[in-house]
Amino acid sequence: MTDPTLQAFFQPRGVVVFGASVSPGKLGYGVAHNLVVSGYPGGVHFVGLKPGALFGRPIYTDLAEVPDPVELAVLVVPAPAVAEAVRACGERGIRVAIVISGGFRETGPQGAALEQEMLAIAGQYGMRLVGPNCVGLLETHWPMDTTFLPPPMPPAGNVALISHSGAFCGIIIDWARGQKFGFSRLISLGNQADVNETDMLNVVAEDAHTRVLTHYLEQVADGGRFVAEARRVVQRKPVIALKTGRFAAGQRAAASHTGALAGSDTAYDAAFEKAGVLRAPTMEAMFDWASALAFCPPLRGRRVAILSSAGGPGVVSADSLEDHGLGLAEFSTSTRAKLATLLPPAANVNNPVDMLASATDQTFADCLKVLLADAGVDGVLVIVPPAPMWPTELAAQALIPLVRAADKPVMIALMGADLVAKAGNLFRAANVVTFPFPERAAAAFDALARREEFLAKAEDIPQPLDDVNREAARDALAGATLGEWLDPQAVDRLLNAYGIPTAAIHLAQDEAEVAALADVLGFPLVVKVASADIAHKSDVGGVVLGVDSSEAVVEAFRMVTARARAARPEARIDGIHLQRMAGAGQEVILGATRDPQFGPLMMFGSGGVEVEGLRDVTFALGPLTEAETGVMLTRTWAGRKLAGFRSIPAGDSQAVRDVLRRLSWLVQDCAQITEIEINPLRVMPAGVIAIDARVRC
Amino acid sequence: MTDPTLQAFFQPRGVVVFGASVSPGKLGYGVAHNLVVSGYPGGVHFVGLKPGALFGRPIYTDLAEVPDPVELAVLVVPAPAVAEAVRACGERGIRVAIVISGGFRETGPQGAALEQEMLAIAGQYGMRLVGPNCVGLLETHWPMDTTFLPPPMPPAGNVALISHSGAFCGIIIDWARGQKFGFSRLISLGNQADVNETDMLNVVAEDAHTRVLTHYLEQVADGGRFVAEARRVVQRKPVIALKTGRFAAGQRAAASHTGALAGSDTAYDAAFEKAGVLRAPTMEAMFDWASALAFCPPLRGRRVAILSSAGGPGVVSADSLEDHGLGLAEFSTSTRAKLATLLPPAANVNNPVDMLASATDQTFADCLKVLLADAGVDGVLVIVPPAPMWPTELAAQALIPLVRAADKPVMIALMGADLVAKAGNLFRAANVVTFPFPERAAAAFDALARREEFLAKAEDIPQPLDDVNREAARDALAGATLGEWLDPQAVDRLLNAYGIPTAAIHLAQDEAEVAALADVLGFPLVVKVASADIAHKSDVGGVVLGVDSSEAVVEAFRMVTARARAARPEARIDGIHLQRMAGAGQEVILGATRDPQFGPLMMFGSGGVEVEGLRDVTFALGPLTEAETGVMLTRTWAGRKLAGFRSIPAGDSQAVRDVLRRLSWLVQDCAQITEIEINPLRVMPAGVIAIDARVRC
Repeated sequence: MTDPTLQAFFQPRGVVVFGASVSPGKLGYGVAHNLVVSGYPGGVHFVGLKPGALFGRPIYTDLAEVPDPVELAVLVVPAPAVAEAVRACGERGIRVAIVISGGFRETGPQGAALEQEMLAIAGQYGMRLVGPNCVGLLETHWPMDTTFLPPPMPPAGNVALISHSGAFCGIIIDWARGQKFGFSRLISLGNQADVNETDMLNVVAEDAHTRVLTHYLEQVADGGRFVAEARRVVQRKPVIALKTGRFAAGQRAAASHTGALAGSDTAYDAAFEKAGVLRAPTMEAMFDWASALAFCPPLRGRRVAILSSAGGPGVVSADSLEDHGLGLAEFSTSTRAKLATLLPPAANVNNPVDMLASATDQTFADCLKVLLADAGVDGVLVIVPPAPMWPTELAAQALIPLVRAADKPVMIALMGADLVAKAGNLFRAANVVTFPFPERAAAAFDALARREEFLAKAEDIPQPLDDVNREAARDALAGATLGEWLDPQAVDRLLNAYGIPTAAIHLAQDEAEVAALADVLGFPLVVKVASADIAHKSDVGGVVLGVDSSEAVVEAFRMVTARARAARPEARIDGIHLQRMAGAGQEVILGATRDPQFGPLMMFGSGGVEVEGLRDVTFALGPLTEAETGVMLTRTWAGRKLAGFRSIPAGDSQAVRDVLRRLSWLVQDCAQITEIEINPLRVMPAGVIAIDARVRC
Repeated sequence: MTDPTLQAFFQPRGVVVFGASVSPGKLGYGVAHNLVVSGYPGGVHFVGLKPGALFGRPIYTDLAEVPDPVELAVLVVPAPAVAEAVRACGERGIRVAIVISGGFRETGPQGAALEQEMLAIAGQYGMRLVGPNCVGLLETHWPMDTTFLPPPMPPAGNVALISHSGAFCGIIIDWARGQKFGFSRLISLGNQADVNETDMLNVVAEDAHTRVLTHYLEQVADGGRFVAEARRVVQRKPVIALKTGRFAAGQRAAASHTGALAGSDTAYDAAFEKAGVLRAPTMEAMFDWASALAFCPPLRGRRVAILSSAGGPGVVSADSLEDHGLGLAEFSTSTRAKLATLLPPAANVNNPVDMLASATDQTFADCLKVLLADAGVDGVLVIVPPAPMWPTELAAQALIPLVRAADKPVMIALMGADLVAKAGNLFRAANVVTFPFPERAAAAFDALARREEFLAKAEDIPQPLDDVNREAARDALAGATLGEWLDPQAVDRLLNAYGIPTAAIHLAQDEAEVAALADVLGFPLVVKVASADIAHKSDVGGVVLGVDSSEAVVEAFRMVTARARAARPEARIDGIHLQRMAGAGQEVILGATRDPQFGPLMMFGSGGVEVEGLRDVTFALGPLTEAETGVMLTRTWAGRKLAGFRSIPAGDSQAVRDVLRRLSWLVQDCAQITEIEINPLRVMPAGVIAIDARVRC
């Protein structure tokens, strides 16, 4: 939800700069200068230590002297003076302030105390703060520039940038001027003492000029809130994130396979996917995708046509589309026939279309019209190299009206530089998306496709289960010790409470008990050493399968306990666990860890002992919907194999998906569970059974 | 080997244009014009249909009238007139000609006949031809421009481009002008009636101005020759290829797992790896890497330091280096101490170094000096954003002498546009490599590392085996039928002849024979249906393991033959094959197909029936060296697992590598083998045994 106060950051009636300076080397000069030259339509006022004048305006020494209206304060005073300046603003009724000043939390405990003091005062007056330690924000349409970065602002446009890095803002402003890339707003968040990235996402999403939001993220302040609110925003406007620190966090110490494989970056990937936020691999890709999303109509499918006057670049483009999971559209007979009438006999009228070098601007336009009319074409990539015999801008003039009128995305690979510069200007002015190399266009088509694929499933919300026994689950967890593995019989009860079938597990502590229990259970049996201290029992030779007689079960008891003692003398051994062997079937792993930022992080994939080696696993944020469980299966060989493969019979994939969904709700509902793993889940032609499971709180 | 004649294409004394035209719209005008304006230092002469004058020179109607010296002819006459023009050149003693004219093989059979005629005449005179159907070539240092593309030529530089696409040349020439990217030579190969990409590679590699060769490849003319000659060239100069049509060829129809997984593009990957040719994923990457390879000293390891005045881009760079398999250098205590004296307390003196925004040009230089002096740093990525308080070109001036003097690669991420443009010009003039985004620098560091890694193993040449019985192998293959699977007993003999241990295989055709043979062999046994028509026997239930008595073996005989008949009524069934069961162990797949271009293409990976599903396989061109077999193991989980993993005991990886090497020589030596596959090879703690193997000729 958006605090309406936050809108005042962008369109305030009157701005006051605290710490305005007449020395051109000072930030307080830069901010004052930028506000004045940015063309901000309201009053710009200055408050400083000494009275004076700057840019034809007085410098007041007291906020009380500043005339009405004044709604936004920009603070560039030294850190120790910020709190009093905030108080003065509060007294004056100013509701929003940008604190550019550094010297706060980023410098140590003393600075952190100043930050807290500032925040407390702002709270007293209901004020909202951006910063401290930021470069400010700018809005190109109003217009207003509160930064101290060298003007002019980037061209006015339709992409917003919200950034955790001030330096990144400075770089992108200069880059945007050079590229003539338009921005609507840029916001440097600084230390986020108050307003954070999720708050800004909400506010900026409401801006009519902003069509796409880009995010330079170091980490999100509140994972759950970010996912929920970003997901809501994304349903109206595309959000792209460049999330840094992918490798910095490293892997967590964890005893389960799931925990070992789920780095914190995995959780970010899963969170972005859940929210529909597109994660860009590079800075360049983020803005490439933003252009495409801002100016292209929806891409309804993944079938792209390539139109080129040169064979080589057409083939490069086809490769690149395939790389990005897009398909080459297959043309209808009628399309091919129409192209044939427009092109010389040696041309290629299949995809990629090669019009040959003799193509004129009119040929480009005529062929594009034909391709757009083909129902089997979802989008078109047009390759425009320097034309050998005519100025390339003619192609731009011929193509622009068609691209603007099309209800399918058309992007241009405008290849070259000097000879295509005029064409580039025309395309840009018409908001037609161009890239210097077709590979970047291919990646942008993928971004368009992924957005539509998210929107198609945006209504798919996880539904709580109504056939689970939450009380039984609570009981099963009652005896759990923090940081330790839950007793296997309690695990059994826990899973059963959520409708997950298990191979019932029985503890036997001495030979007599073993023999008696075995006779009751029948054969064949599985024997496993019973020890809460041994996580991976097969690693110590602690598992025997197919035990088929009373004598054999006693023998197995002796063997697994002896092996376990030998391998792990320090482990407490409680005896053995006995289970009836399940029917034959495939085996998969299902697991979850609780991510500190984002909550239940579910894993599915190839089970057994080789989980970390094969890495045939995929992750998603829980709780899961029916559709999400299907996607997880599709992404892994373990999941695809459930359909059957050569001599491997099919397994009950519907039952696997059901268990995956139940497991995700179990972790969602039982907040004390930190790790849970079923490995393996035996998947039979009909039904599944959890053979081994572990739970830690 | 290079034909010395080919050098005349680039530095001829005197050029004649056949088909020179006074009409500015004609190619014959463009070529004449470019030659004149390019500053070519020799005589430029024109031959045309009608006498006249062009650019102050006469147009002759007869080559005989052209004054000496004349060494290169550029032909722009219509296709039907080319043969006679070539003959005239031959008579005049001209040894090299560029045929720009189209209308040959690319237009159909009639054109192909003209091409053959032209080639035959050139052969009579020992002439060498580039083209036909090309845009010509240019050499920027001599200088000489024989193309018809809009001048001027790209800036003179140290990167050569050899291209199968003429359009790509046109695009790159214009792009290079815009980027101020320097080229030494650009060559459009056209139809390659005579001179092909490998010929050109050899010639251009000898050019002193060319430091790096780039290749736009559609397909190579002769795979074996390309690999051999490119490998030789690469030992002197880096070669980068952009190979198109990665997806076009699709998968081959093949009955083995190896064949199903080995697409023709896999063979190109393997060929480039064998030759040390770096394969670029995109056009942009090709020229990024070329810059780095042309101007950086060798990168001796993969430990890179990042130096930045901004935290955010530093972290992005760290992520990107990790993405590309580079490591962040760990600094020595002394390095950190020196950095601490140069930087404010809040700066980060670990990698990535964050100098903070207060850094001056001198800080950049001082810190770079410290980093270059650290023995644990193999290269440095310096991030230069627009400096807030001083002109960014000062950083360029301070850094350039250090970068030029360094014996380690330093690359600059020069981020921004307008504010860093002057710095960009200075860096470029000094041949210091810059990129607008750090991610591209990270990819270029990887290219530098890969080059050194190749050079380190360039002396590693496969050595023929001296302990194989080639005669026995010939005998075993004697009964092979083209296109059919070799009899399993012959496969046994074939593998044994090359020192590959097999589970000896015995055919039994009726129940009596089965029982008698089983008694001789002992138990336990493996029973497989014997049928040349059934490639994957387990798919039809045609395999029974662990058969442990005379009664059981007869039962198994009945069962597998009945199942096979039921599943494949059309298959001819010869009885069963009996093998003693091998010891327990891991299982891997080893295979080879014969690629029509490149010869033996070896595969290694996870075996069993799930090969295509798991796709845990890797490929390399045979014959293999000892070191190459080690790399293949490292690249797959199947290979890494041989070291042992959790409860899985280690396998004899040395024996696996030995079999891989032997198998590669077997395919190399026996040209009639088209596919061979051992699946599985059982890998025991000591020794290996081929459990099942198939060979097709």
